[in-house]
Amino acid sequence: MYALTVRDRMMIAHSLPHPVFGPAQGLHGATYVVELTIRRAELGEEAFVIDIGEATTLLREALADLDYANLDDHPELAGTLTTTEALARFVADRVAGRLAGGPYAGLDVTLREHPDAWATYSRDL
Amino acid sequence: MYALTVRDRMMIAHSLPHPVFGPAQGLHGATYVVELTIRRAELGEEAFVIDIGEATTLLREALADLDYANLDDHPELAGTLTTTEALARFVADRVAGRLAGGPYAGLDVTLREHPDAWATYSRDL
Amino acid sequence: MYALTVRDRMMIAHSLPHPVFGPAQGLHGATYVVELTIRRAELGEEAFVIDIGEATTLLREALADLDYANLDDHPELAGTLTTTEALARFVADRVAGRLAGGPYAGLDVTLREHPDAWATYSRDL
Amino acid sequence: MYALTVRDRMMIAHSLPHPVFGPAQGLHGATYVVELTIRRAELGEEAFVIDIGEATTLLREALADLDYANLDDHPELAGTLTTTEALARFVADRVAGRLAGGPYAGLDVTLREHPDAWATYSRDL
Amino acid sequence: MYALTVRDRMMIAHSLPHPVFGPAQGLHGATYVVELTIRRAELGEEAFVIDIGEATTLLREALADLDYANLDDHPELAGTLTTTEALARFVADRVAGRLAGGPYAGLDVTLREHPDAWATYSRDL
Amino acid sequence: MYALTVRDRMMIAHSLPHPVFGPAQGLHGATYVVELTIRRAELGEEAFVIDIGEATTLLREALADLDYANLDDHPELAGTLTTTEALARFVADRVAGRLAGGPYAGLDVTLREHPDAWATYSRDL
Repeated sequence: MYALTVRDRMMIAHSLPHPVFGPAQGLHGATYVVELTIRRAELGEEAFVIDIGEATTLLREALADLDYANLDDHPELAGTLTTTEALARFVADRVAGRLAGGPYAGLDVTLREHPDAWATYSRDL
Repeated sequence: MYALTVRDRMMIAHSLPHPVFGPAQGLHGATYVVELTIRRAELGEEAFVIDIGEATTLLREALADLDYANLDDHPELAGTLTTTEALARFVADRVAGRLAGGPYAGLDVTLREHPDAWATYSRDL
Repeated sequence: MYALTVRDRMMIAHSLPHPVFGPAQGLHGATYVVELTIRRAELGEEAFVIDIGEATTLLREALADLDYANLDDHPELAGTLTTTEALARFVADRVAGRLAGGPYAGLDVTLREHPDAWATYSRDL
Repeated sequence: MYALTVRDRMMIAHSLPHPVFGPAQGLHGATYVVELTIRRAELGEEAFVIDIGEATTLLREALADLDYANLDDHPELAGTLTTTEALARFVADRVAGRLAGGPYAGLDVTLREHPDAWATYSRDL
Repeated sequence: MYALTVRDRMMIAHSLPHPVFGPAQGLHGATYVVELTIRRAELGEEAFVIDIGEATTLLREALADLDYANLDDHPELAGTLTTTEALARFVADRVAGRLAGGPYAGLDVTLREHPDAWATYSRDL
Repeated sequence: MYALTVRDRMMIAHSLPHPVFGPAQGLHGATYVVELTIRRAELGEEAFVIDIGEATTLLREALADLDYANLDDHPELAGTLTTTEALARFVADRVAGRLAGGPYAGLDVTLREHPDAWATYSRDL
């Protein structure tokens, strides 16, 4: 199995309105370093999983309306607890919608919120 | 599948008394950067694998009596070759004992001993 | 010259209301990885610049009311453009106030806002 | 499952003569940071997956004739598009040939070409 | 003193035709991770050393004709040993030419050629 | 001014027998990631501060009898509190003894003891 990973980031504000989150219930923010991994069993004639430029563009497009935004105001996230795990899935599903029907086995999205904590959502394609 | 990782560290002394270890047979030490990854298939209402604070506490408790210690004198490690692999399993099994019965699929513990070498132990829950 | 650096972080929301900042004029956020470096010409009997635990506490106290906050609402930052540079100075001056009169030559505070951009403020003590 | 990873690097020149690669069709180069992960289900009496020194030597030997070379002139790579994915497999298969018959479950080779892109090839043993 | 750093990269081929360079005399390559630091004594009304976007553009323009190139064929580098130190100065002087007359105190350019070696050139403005 | 940095590491055991060190008074250990920076005002015909291979060898030789050792038993460190700062100076002075009389302006030695703490000793040559 082959895997190709590209990395980008987004700088967001949000709050986590559930008592379990303690001080993170208030409005705060994060730089999420975002890694998108695409998996594929066999390569084609270009000898790549996906063109790095194309993967980078896919990831950027998936992050574009989240970056420099307050996620509490994002219409697609209304009523969603925007935890790192939930955002990883949100980004992964967006990318998956673009890759459907291609020669890919699956993908992972990792969001690193600070040097000591990160989350990943993995799914098949 | 979702995964959440938290990171901590421990600074230990130990020796590896088996001829295969060459200079590491003598007493030396290491900073182990420790990553604990917990996996879970579906999220609950809090939209997380586990609270980051709770995971951080679990990991800290698993490392507490190892950190700033000489592992050659640790009663639970008597007769154990404290290789990076063996320590990764020791920490993973400690954490697993605390997570048993929860909604988790598995966990990984990675110990990084220096920038060019690290080991992981992975297990189901 | 000796220097000791400790690292912490803060997760903040803020906006940068000046036209030069483009999309960062809106409310967004950042994880700032914060490095505090304290410089000292000669060591005392403890053979350190400052105790790592003490430096870590100093830095944490300087960040405590910024972490998990919306800086747009912080009373000491009213009317301040909270750029990375301005925040680095704000943190540095807070720490400097605590170190005044000690055996220190100066300090630096670096704030890393994402993997490709960071700022430092350096001052004498 | 246990896994042990060692890291090395190689500094190569190459070109990617296929129209999809845009500016990378010309002769350019890369520092590939190379990670070799070896997996094993159970440990032996030495309590390791493989000796770190032995794994480091295996990886170095697999990279030796690639490092400081122009891959366009490498006889074993004639007619190969030396993408990151293809090189990851080339290195992995070389190492696999040396580990055959041992107690190993599989291996992964990751090549990091810059901070924002890397590829992995994974195979059983 | 304030400092702002932005980071980019370039992937180049080159050779170092001097006997002291051993295997690096042949054609090989590197990913250079490039950090540009601009220093300034006092901030203006925008509260920054320089706009991050502007600094990023300056650095990209300084690297544009080096990236994905064979430096042995670059007209401005004919007869130059393109060591990491020499390239750091080349990039720094290019950027300095663009910043002349501005409110800046100096700049540093660091080129990281692999995880265990990097070089910096520092100059006043 | 030019600077060239090379990186190595050492894995040591030691104790810090002074009440200020709390739990670090007992025997424990560390992986020190060690960075040696050599500074030089102008380059010679080889266009480098120092050959990377030569700098790497100098650093390795300065660390050789510390690596995989218990510093409490090291004859040159008897009676020394082997703090990170003191070890940085010890390594720096060893390297300085080898570089004396050369075209160098100064050097820095940084020892990173874990991801959130490191110390540097800087001196002229």
